[in-house]
Amino acid sequence: MLKLFDLAGADDERRFSPYCWRVRLALAHKHLPVETIPWRFTEKDRIAASGQERVPVLVDGDKWIADSWTIANYLEDAYPDRPSLFGGGAGRALSRFYVGWADTVLQPAMARLIVRDVLDRLHAKDRAYFRQSREERFGRTLEEVVADRDKKLPAFRAALSPLRVALQGQPFLAGAAPLQADYIVFGSFQWARATSAFELLAKDDSVHAWRERMLDLYDGLARKAPAEAA
Amino acid sequence: MLKLFDLAGADDERRFSPYCWRVRLALAHKHLPVETIPWRFTEKDRIAASGQERVPVLVDGDKWIADSWTIANYLEDAYPDRPSLFGGGAGRALSRFYVGWADTVLQPAMARLIVRDVLDRLHAKDRAYFRQSREERFGRTLEEVVADRDKKLPAFRAALSPLRVALQGQPFLAGAAPLQADYIVFGSFQWARATSAFELLAKDDSVHAWRERMLDLYDGLARKAPAEAA
Repeated sequence: MLKLFDLAGADDERRFSPYCWRVRLALAHKHLPVETIPWRFTEKDRIAASGQERVPVLVDGDKWIADSWTIANYLEDAYPDRPSLFGGGAGRALSRFYVGWADTVLQPAMARLIVRDVLDRLHAKDRAYFRQSREERFGRTLEEVVADRDKKLPAFRAALSPLRVALQGQPFLAGAAPLQADYIVFGSFQWARATSAFELLAKDDSVHAWRERMLDLYDGLARKAPAEAA
Repeated sequence: MLKLFDLAGADDERRFSPYCWRVRLALAHKHLPVETIPWRFTEKDRIAASGQERVPVLVDGDKWIADSWTIANYLEDAYPDRPSLFGGGAGRALSRFYVGWADTVLQPAMARLIVRDVLDRLHAKDRAYFRQSREERFGRTLEEVVADRDKKLPAFRAALSPLRVALQGQPFLAGAAPLQADYIVFGSFQWARATSAFELLAKDDSVHAWRERMLDLYDGLARKAPAEAA
């Protein structure tokens, strides 16, 4: 069976990495059972065979594959008889921009709202590492980063406008059914849901409705996961 | 022959609408000859048959089709034997997010740098309309909007990060060859090039290299058009 090193919080069942969620949903999309292995930031030695220090790491027999985009491409090529994650060559190439937007726009903007909440979900042994590495990245304490989050919320919601345009007239970013592009973007929302009660989306937002559809996929895979938000 | 109402400036040959350029390149992609008709903002009566007041408007026999996204979809469906603009159903759905990003992020950010330059390119009869409608939108004079553009340039360039991620390892957003997604994003760059000498991109930027490739397409269709920038 496939194995996935999956970032976990204080309790083993709390899985919150946006990048691991991209892979969890890709595996479900391809009907590939997986054993997820709870992993913490400070357990870099356990994934050394992947040649790097971050999750997701997928283990398929003797292959160790890191990076959510690399893993999605690996799954597409290694399991071509299963439902496609990209819908063809153009779809695969066009999905890269979603990675770019999620990694450089969505995830950083969301972090500025909820990163302090993430700290509370972590295993005790990860907290010092997380605080130090993130505070270095932001150049401020985590408390300072999120202090004015209510004021930042309108700009965050406005930054989701490309999603609203994309969702006009189609239920998923990829059309009538979701593909990897949906999982790429959803990973960040699932990260927030798993770690923070802060209401990122207004209930009448089409992005909210899309997130609900994503939560329902695969027998509620994401919805059933331990979370702070509804 | 197909006809396209195409926004023009003071001289008929200066074509600068980002949305019309999306269609110009879509038509070239499909090897469809077109007669472009120079049109000005204030000539709304000439496109009344389209049921709305903006270009691009494509005329195909007795059909009048408005809106660049609607036109691209029309061309894909009406000319299915020609090269595809989307690379299949998934590619078509996934291209909508590019419309969203270009329309709500790229184009507004670019406007804050060059909108005053656009005014100088316009036909005399369009200038009052353009200044008034754009100043209402921005809530400031056009001169005020662009006054600090050198200071805004780093943030503009940073906002292009999703493109840089997408272009890692592939020459076009759609992969080895361009599709409508490339034309959607390129339209804004061609708009800037046609109207302003302001240097939006650093020469060592992968987005710059992509823009060069886009300018070369279809025997230099976009490069040969009257422009202010190289």
